[in-house]
Amino acid sequence: MQSERRPRLTPSIADVRRAVRTVFTVAPASTFVLVGLSGGADSLALAAATAFEARRFGARAGAVIVDHGLQTGSADVAAAAGDQARRLGLAPVLVVSVQVGTDSGPEAAARAARYAAFERALAETGADAVLLGHTLDDQAETVLLGLARGSGPTSLRGMSVRNGRYLRPLLGIRRAQTREFCADSGLEPWHDPQNLDPAYARVRVRETVLPVLEHELGPGISEALVRTADALREDSDALDALAREVLGSSWTGTGEDGRIAVDTLATLPAAVRQRVIRFGVEAQFGATLERTHTVAVARLVTDWHGQEALHLPGVRVVRQDGVLIFADLGHAFE
Amino acid sequence: MQSERRPRLTPSIADVRRAVRTVFTVAPASTFVLVGLSGGADSLALAAATAFEARRFGARAGAVIVDHGLQTGSADVAAAAGDQARRLGLAPVLVVSVQVGTDSGPEAAARAARYAAFERALAETGADAVLLGHTLDDQAETVLLGLARGSGPTSLRGMSVRNGRYLRPLLGIRRAQTREFCADSGLEPWHDPQNLDPAYARVRVRETVLPVLEHELGPGISEALVRTADALREDSDALDALAREVLGSSWTGTGEDGRIAVDTLATLPAAVRQRVIRFGVEAQFGATLERTHTVAVARLVTDWHGQEALHLPGVRVVRQDGVLIFADLGHAFE
Repeated sequence: MQSERRPRLTPSIADVRRAVRTVFTVAPASTFVLVGLSGGADSLALAAATAFEARRFGARAGAVIVDHGLQTGSADVAAAAGDQARRLGLAPVLVVSVQVGTDSGPEAAARAARYAAFERALAETGADAVLLGHTLDDQAETVLLGLARGSGPTSLRGMSVRNGRYLRPLLGIRRAQTREFCADSGLEPWHDPQNLDPAYARVRVRETVLPVLEHELGPGISEALVRTADALREDSDALDALAREVLGSSWTGTGEDGRIAVDTLATLPAAVRQRVIRFGVEAQFGATLERTHTVAVARLVTDWHGQEALHLPGVRVVRQDGVLIFADLGHAFE
Repeated sequence: MQSERRPRLTPSIADVRRAVRTVFTVAPASTFVLVGLSGGADSLALAAATAFEARRFGARAGAVIVDHGLQTGSADVAAAAGDQARRLGLAPVLVVSVQVGTDSGPEAAARAARYAAFERALAETGADAVLLGHTLDDQAETVLLGLARGSGPTSLRGMSVRNGRYLRPLLGIRRAQTREFCADSGLEPWHDPQNLDPAYARVRVRETVLPVLEHELGPGISEALVRTADALREDSDALDALAREVLGSSWTGTGEDGRIAVDTLATLPAAVRQRVIRFGVEAQFGATLERTHTVAVARLVTDWHGQEALHLPGVRVVRQDGVLIFADLGHAFE
């Protein structure tokens, strides 16, 4: 029997491998990927499954391990993950140390340093993509965190399976399965103490909020959050595309200001109008308007009663002769 | 009419009155509304503020109280609410008993009976609209319940400020404000014991889930949920409208089957394509497809490799000669 020759093909190993397989189905022989490895159960299972599937398809798979230098012993953790990657047969294995800045919070700074390291690894090795170990549970947490921010569709879209050269083949896999994968494979994952530190909102969502939701509203809440994110991502993409079309054909940006006709905005559905305003300001002034702001600008179109210029963060907006004029804060309207 | 105690104009009274005022700004003298009154703090504050504003604007405002007959003493509660409405100066005051069916769960059955009573009250009195006392907190609970169902954008849209002849002027008001309104006005609201019964998912969301979210992710979670629902409702409306346009111009429904060209569906954004499929099936066969189903149908367009007919709940779908053909389950494809 087939199973006797593969005694360790447990359900979790089969599921994770099947998820990873999608990476290699297009052009296996010329595919070259790097696994972003932390040593935790998610990325370790991803690394093992990727090594297995790459071998099967005759593709190339290496690993990149980022030492953020933020915890004592982080260099040892990174070196150990590097050893695991090599034992799994991944090559090349890059272990890189980064300097984490202090801008915009510790999590965002670590993330920026990590992605910069991934970019360098892609450039140095000539690999096609970095595979990331985010699971369905990470996605559910991301959606709940976005929901708590309340910044609307954008914050609810969650992570994409593919975003440029970053792939997340495990977004349909539960975290418990990656742990089982490691146990079934005799792999020893690293347990990051930060994953239990309630100073992080994500940890509180994982350890407290989601369990309460599961308990009070029935099991399957994580899957429900992920299904919702999938549908909302699709919705957002469609409306974003419509808004960018309008922006391309109807927004006139000069060094001085940005302009768009009131009539053009008036005929659009509210959802597209809000986006045209937000994207236009973002593109021309680098400022990000919140919903209350775009709603106020839209009222210059839909509820016009001679309002004065709006002073918003990073931009001023005025309606003149049937045109909305956006200018930076130093600009004086005629 | 019994003399009304004249309350001090506290912040909560001012806020609730201002919210209700929007109902009377269009054509006050000819406006005639009924307040849907349970006797609880939300609808009692709504009734008092509506009576006040209607008097101010020379408009007409009555009340409709529905006795669902589901709890002992419910007739007394309804009669007491009727007395309160009359003391507030509302007229006419209709107290109606309904027979709650047993179809599709107790909550849905009570809701159906209540809306039927509202419809009859509108017809009998000639009123323009029923005002409902749902608050921002109700809206946040609705969004969280929808999220737990995971049925995507539709379940997250929450309640509308206006839905046909039903208005919800308090959707921007916190429940705590309606309680304060009642205390400040010397009004004694009824405390529905069902509002504390954890057998109801809504009660668990209110009493357990939202407090945990507030505690773990910071205050303002209810407002964040409501902001999100507002933006998502806008998005959904825009995409629904686009899909209905496509449906109107490109879906051919006969007694036999429904048809739409693959090429038409292929050029649509995924979000619109999913909706065209869902709305088309809903309109022609009265069946509601889940996301996994519409995704499977869409694959007949975007990932065609000669699939066989799909058997979905209430409908079968097959691709033939560049056309998707939808037929009911009894229909045999040629």
